[in-house]
Amino acid sequence: MSKPLSIAIAGLGTVGGGTLHLLERHAGLIELRCGRKVKVVAVSARDRKRDRKLDLSGMTWFDDAAKMAKEAEAEVIVELIGGSEGIAKTICENAIATGKHVVTANKALLAHHGLALAIKAEANGVSLHFEAAVAGGIPIIKGLREGLAGNGISRVYGILNGTCNYILTNMRETGKDFAEVLEEARKLGYAEADPSFDIDGIDTAHKLAILTSVAFGCDTNFDAVYVEGIRHVSALDISFAEELGYRIKLLGIARLTEHGVEQRVHPCLVPGRSSIAHVEDVQNAVMVEGDFVGKIVFQGRGAGAGPTASAVVADLVDIARGTKVPTFAVPAARLAKIPPSPMDRHRGAYYLRLMVADQPGVIADVAAALRDEGISLESMLQHGRAAAGAVPVVLTTHETAEAAMSRALKRIGALTAVFEPPRMIRVEPL
Amino acid sequence: MSKPLSIAIAGLGTVGGGTLHLLERHAGLIELRCGRKVKVVAVSARDRKRDRKLDLSGMTWFDDAAKMAKEAEAEVIVELIGGSEGIAKTICENAIATGKHVVTANKALLAHHGLALAIKAEANGVSLHFEAAVAGGIPIIKGLREGLAGNGISRVYGILNGTCNYILTNMRETGKDFAEVLEEARKLGYAEADPSFDIDGIDTAHKLAILTSVAFGCDTNFDAVYVEGIRHVSALDISFAEELGYRIKLLGIARLTEHGVEQRVHPCLVPGRSSIAHVEDVQNAVMVEGDFVGKIVFQGRGAGAGPTASAVVADLVDIARGTKVPTFAVPAARLAKIPPSPMDRHRGAYYLRLMVADQPGVIADVAAALRDEGISLESMLQHGRAAAGAVPVVLTTHETAEAAMSRALKRIGALTAVFEPPRMIRVEPL
Repeated sequence: MSKPLSIAIAGLGTVGGGTLHLLERHAGLIELRCGRKVKVVAVSARDRKRDRKLDLSGMTWFDDAAKMAKEAEAEVIVELIGGSEGIAKTICENAIATGKHVVTANKALLAHHGLALAIKAEANGVSLHFEAAVAGGIPIIKGLREGLAGNGISRVYGILNGTCNYILTNMRETGKDFAEVLEEARKLGYAEADPSFDIDGIDTAHKLAILTSVAFGCDTNFDAVYVEGIRHVSALDISFAEELGYRIKLLGIARLTEHGVEQRVHPCLVPGRSSIAHVEDVQNAVMVEGDFVGKIVFQGRGAGAGPTASAVVADLVDIARGTKVPTFAVPAARLAKIPPSPMDRHRGAYYLRLMVADQPGVIADVAAALRDEGISLESMLQHGRAAAGAVPVVLTTHETAEAAMSRALKRIGALTAVFEPPRMIRVEPL
Repeated sequence: MSKPLSIAIAGLGTVGGGTLHLLERHAGLIELRCGRKVKVVAVSARDRKRDRKLDLSGMTWFDDAAKMAKEAEAEVIVELIGGSEGIAKTICENAIATGKHVVTANKALLAHHGLALAIKAEANGVSLHFEAAVAGGIPIIKGLREGLAGNGISRVYGILNGTCNYILTNMRETGKDFAEVLEEARKLGYAEADPSFDIDGIDTAHKLAILTSVAFGCDTNFDAVYVEGIRHVSALDISFAEELGYRIKLLGIARLTEHGVEQRVHPCLVPGRSSIAHVEDVQNAVMVEGDFVGKIVFQGRGAGAGPTASAVVADLVDIARGTKVPTFAVPAARLAKIPPSPMDRHRGAYYLRLMVADQPGVIADVAAALRDEGISLESMLQHGRAAAGAVPVVLTTHETAEAAMSRALKRIGALTAVFEPPRMIRVEPL
């Protein structure tokens, strides 16, 4: 029996508490699976006095997590504080500089500084693990780095934010509008007090930037991710989508194209018969397309104490077993610099909802704007009539260029008979 | 750069050819991901003269694969011949005895001799890898052994045989009967000339026995698997199931119960809204329930040259990277001996279809037989009337004991107004 793997945990919130709880509950199982114990030797959190209902006996307490990362007698530092800058970054840097492995659940940190940290870690002969940073308990990082390592990956995409998926599912099921469902999600603890990171798509973009790097073996490039959140998705759009045979999901999509890497986060119409349409509530799902394996789907809960602790401990088990895999599947120094493919270059089908005056000639003007950009219509829906005020008209198009669509939308939005900015949602064939 | 990982491949059929093809196509990518080349130094197959459209230059040919396993100058033997006994077993034993790692896609071998091989491999300090043996390209063995290693697993189940799933999907979509769809599947290459291993559930049972061992850390016990195939599933049952809101799938299910490990393979009615109901055609899916992670779904293609080669190469990448994980997630010598929970102990809901004489009193007799065993009905369906001959009556029950159901079925089958043996299919809540 080898000596225990000694670890220090920074952050004792939901995930930190869950991790301690798991390590205690399954101490015997983990020892059996690793061939050695995993022992928490030190912890750090903001307030020592807070009652966390955790047994911290035998663990050295540090008020300063950055100091702990340097000084604790641990082989691994587990960073569960979060945030792309400040203390979380310092903890990881200190750990690596002093020859300790790092396990983190911090997607913002990885998306912004993953490459720099990976280079340092590999130079110092330590590992940087982050299974918990993407899609909670789903072992997608391991799936990409190891399980699908024999494939050239062409596309990776998925539902990466449980809050948004809960809101969109609930809106569809109840017919309620965004603001109301968001408020309910807050009360249920499914949305943060400040939910903007989730609902504006930033959280999904962080996770997508990480997946992109692992899947394609290229630098993380968060700034190149096109991001649109779900604030503008209305009950009306969800209902029209359903009528057309679609559901609306917030997807993160990364694709290798002839122009480079396309990374985009935005609401999508997905076919009602596709498996991703049936990933509901707080569930996450990640789809990977490989040239030999075909399409593989990974699905499960993307957040919460249990699933996240499961991912953190999987990383610890890997370290305890001595597994060594390059941070982003290939050595950091050899990650490719693939140019980003700009959104203008994107091609796809589109859903448009216009609020128009119920008078002759409006549709003709709209159709002309699309025709002049070479955009062909697939379907049109119009319900009811209004003596005064606006009526919704919904159009879907065949595949066209994003740039052409942008120009057409500008012209349509300027029509006097079109009352609100046109609402555009991309259609993903999947 | 380390020296190349040298491998020898036994068997150059679909999977062997696919593996060679992958290793050649992605030689650069694999070198980048492993930090070293993966080099095929020797091959063996039945007929040297057959034109396989493979470039075997630089590889030593062995007519005798068992000899190759002993004598080839390789660190890894890849066994892609198949079969639980004979040459495949000898190859693996020879490889282990001479200090070589083994990668195999052979589920029959693992299900019958996995424990014995694992003990030998671990004693000799070599690894036994078998990702390709279960669910083709889906990285489910890695998922269980590593990705979910922080969890106590309570249940693992799934659609593990693409042939059966294709047949059941096709029967539902076309209304055709079993024999006709099987014949078509044969012509399309989705079913073997002798399809009994697939359609009688043996193949699923092999895979389930392996999953059980890896999930629960216990000995493989193929003989304890209860097995029922899909020969008796009729178009009529599929249509009645659909009317009741269910689809019929052949599932392999392993569960830890108070009585031990329950392992069973049989057709199931699954709710039409469940995600497993939408796993169609040749797709496979594996669901895992862990105490921290919750339910995780892995889905993808379960067979074919590409997906299987993807899994074989993932194992080779692990070996090339130096990863060492116990064969069945815990050291073979420490695998638990959990008693099998017999099928009699199973509890569940049931679907029954009876072909009965259309005359008064029949339903009363059937209902009495169920009542006397304490079985309560959930629903009853009867369509049409027949002046003479049999009419189908379909019943579904609430949860009850398998033993009680067996007794009731015996009594029902003996009624003179019941014309054929009653058809029983278990309902899985999932």
